[in-house]
Amino acid sequence: MYLHLPSSRFRMPHAASSRHPRLYSSRVICSVALEHKARLGHCTKVPRNVNMESLKNGYLFPEISIREAEHAEKYPHAKLIKLGIGDTTRPIPHIITSAMAQKALALSTDAGYTGYGDEQGNKDLREAIANVVYKDKGVEWDEVFVSDGAQGDISRLQMLLGSGMTIAVQDPTFPAYVDSSIIVGQAGKFQEETGKFQNIVYMRCCPWNDFFPDLATTPRTDVIFFCSPNNPTGTAASRPQLERLVEFAKANGSIIVHDSAYASYISDDSPRSIFEIPGAKEVAIEISSFSKFAGFTGVRLGWAVVPKELKYSNGFPVRKDFNRIMCTCFNGASSISQAGGLACLSADGYQALCRSIDYYHENADIIIDAFTSLGLKVYGGKNAPYAWVQFPGRSSWEVFNEILERAHVVTVPGAGFGPGGEGYIRVSAFGSRECMLEASRRLKSLLK
Amino acid sequence: MYLHLPSSRFRMPHAASSRHPRLYSSRVICSVALEHKARLGHCTKVPRNVNMESLKNGYLFPEISIREAEHAEKYPHAKLIKLGIGDTTRPIPHIITSAMAQKALALSTDAGYTGYGDEQGNKDLREAIANVVYKDKGVEWDEVFVSDGAQGDISRLQMLLGSGMTIAVQDPTFPAYVDSSIIVGQAGKFQEETGKFQNIVYMRCCPWNDFFPDLATTPRTDVIFFCSPNNPTGTAASRPQLERLVEFAKANGSIIVHDSAYASYISDDSPRSIFEIPGAKEVAIEISSFSKFAGFTGVRLGWAVVPKELKYSNGFPVRKDFNRIMCTCFNGASSISQAGGLACLSADGYQALCRSIDYYHENADIIIDAFTSLGLKVYGGKNAPYAWVQFPGRSSWEVFNEILERAHVVTVPGAGFGPGGEGYIRVSAFGSRECMLEASRRLKSLLK
Repeated sequence: MYLHLPSSRFRMPHAASSRHPRLYSSRVICSVALEHKARLGHCTKVPRNVNMESLKNGYLFPEISIREAEHAEKYPHAKLIKLGIGDTTRPIPHIITSAMAQKALALSTDAGYTGYGDEQGNKDLREAIANVVYKDKGVEWDEVFVSDGAQGDISRLQMLLGSGMTIAVQDPTFPAYVDSSIIVGQAGKFQEETGKFQNIVYMRCCPWNDFFPDLATTPRTDVIFFCSPNNPTGTAASRPQLERLVEFAKANGSIIVHDSAYASYISDDSPRSIFEIPGAKEVAIEISSFSKFAGFTGVRLGWAVVPKELKYSNGFPVRKDFNRIMCTCFNGASSISQAGGLACLSADGYQALCRSIDYYHENADIIIDAFTSLGLKVYGGKNAPYAWVQFPGRSSWEVFNEILERAHVVTVPGAGFGPGGEGYIRVSAFGSRECMLEASRRLKSLLK
Repeated sequence: MYLHLPSSRFRMPHAASSRHPRLYSSRVICSVALEHKARLGHCTKVPRNVNMESLKNGYLFPEISIREAEHAEKYPHAKLIKLGIGDTTRPIPHIITSAMAQKALALSTDAGYTGYGDEQGNKDLREAIANVVYKDKGVEWDEVFVSDGAQGDISRLQMLLGSGMTIAVQDPTFPAYVDSSIIVGQAGKFQEETGKFQNIVYMRCCPWNDFFPDLATTPRTDVIFFCSPNNPTGTAASRPQLERLVEFAKANGSIIVHDSAYASYISDDSPRSIFEIPGAKEVAIEISSFSKFAGFTGVRLGWAVVPKELKYSNGFPVRKDFNRIMCTCFNGASSISQAGGLACLSADGYQALCRSIDYYHENADIIIDAFTSLGLKVYGGKNAPYAWVQFPGRSSWEVFNEILERAHVVTVPGAGFGPGGEGYIRVSAFGSRECMLEASRRLKSLLK
């Protein structure tokens, strides 16, 4: 009952290698480069970083943007519906933007002008995060480091950890963990046959293990990147699952980097923070963000919690090194964005944001209904703004291309999140109600 | 005629090792750590990154903040004047903050809401930077990458370059180049006897070479970090000097990373960009910032120019890899800050900012006058908001401590910028006119 059309009719640009679009072998790059060199004159004698050479594909979302643009050119009159990149669409409540506008305007006054803030973030915001987001979870304000978002924090954490680390990631998961790992040199060789990097442990998360890795067969690594609710599967780890993860990390002496960027979408009793689990402060860092919680994807604001109890093997506190990284490689989040973050955590701000999240949940229900009515199995959508739709036996880039071509709807091919994402697409619930309903109509009509 | 007092009277906290304050040997850390381990329970089995262990001291400016705080506690009634950290103090012109306030408020409307921008920055801002800052210098908009500031760009460049690079820095210079180099593993061992890292080439910049390195004796490195106007010396390289640098880089196949964060303070005919030098696009990256130009130290906005002509030894364009780094490790600068950046580059915004820069120049004249009247030799201050004051034969941390103790004025010890900064202090011209005049009075009275 799933979508399938003759491939000849729906061959996309780049479909030749749908698993690794825009993957050119280094030999091709090299020969192109040598031609350029001859033609274009001066080349430096600086060798290209071998780690950068190891990166496969374009980064997923820019790649999808390119395909979107090509599609728009091909069908200039089609109304494209973008359920691809997980970008918020709801206006930000006025109580929050007016706090930012006020802060901006105050910068024109002698009394209100402020320059550099603390590299770790303003104390009032750090306190608000500790007291509101981590109420009763034992997180102290000086364990909170305010940042420009989780993506920057991931790469700063990778700089902190260095090339000698072994890491594990969920499979599928958000690509930035693997890509930043490749850049700092932890990943090892790419293995074409498995679609995996040699030194990275891929922890399969799929329906038959309730989207939680089989820890009994997971080798020890120094670091475990764990995203819950997971992007792309839209599933949150339950309390017993997170307890097992903390226990596993403790027994192995590993550090968990818990990404809770979607925690505000949790609608059941799954933990919203790893620090709800006893003992987690000894083994975990948490990164999180105002992006999806408050529609701050363009405003840029996030945070990391690095507990005082978390220590390297020699007893040195990880927090002290992370502090140093923030001071050296970062210079504080925008003071205006921080004023907005503070307003998000006020009682009225928080309540207004919950209404936006409800709206996205209703959108997710529409998406789930559309794909379910096509006879497809849909996961996620309840604890995250993503539906994870299964197309057994299909190439996810092929499904992506087919839906784009036939319904003018942009999704994300599951394979972009790791080999375990093959056979799935991720569909975002961010967007207007009208778009969701129209997308639903178009998708359902594909069967007619 | 320079300041000098019996050391017994002015021994500061941490003065025991004034050259390397807060430098603890790894053995001390280790033994402390083992005690902690026994006392505090769980340690992970994750080894501390050896590169992080190699970092000496605290990062300079946080270290100074700590000393400031200690001083304030010791003298609760003293009015401290902060001429240390180079932080802007003048309110931002209203035309710029109102653009940011408008952008913030627009985020509450359906029509004005925007989420993720391009990771490289909004096209209108990239165009404005290319057209206004780089007018007639041949920089194209898609060679401009908007960021949250130069400090972040330096560490992203280091991630791009990787651990295998050899680097050269001016001595003295802004500490982030060396510190980020240590973090990614380029620096090698620290040599106590020289105060230098083994694998870093320190290019001495001092009065007797007109603050420009002796290139004839400078070994080839892959990368040359070159800050002009230089922080801390406040001196800008002249056109013939920059021409020699470009020629040197070209002959050696090196990449120059030119930091022009203070270019807007240049008051003579020194180039404001390395791209004023013919051929520079084949050998240079430029990083720059709105921080000191527009008072955006807290707003956070900067940019890097990576020319299409700049290529690795295999002919691969550096710009393509930098683009990938921006997409993977960064997620775009705040949309509100970017709206402010655009207003800075409007005709009215630019003109208003020039008045702030004039104000700081006048401040610098007051500082220069004060130290000169003490019989000291003062450099800089004409092309940058920093005066570089020479105390021949003195320890710069000792001078820093003495001025703090006797005049309640915070400066920056030159040694914090590299061994070539020993014997100098940096004095910032950022601050109110009243503060400058009061600091000048206090300093002059030290001789009475």
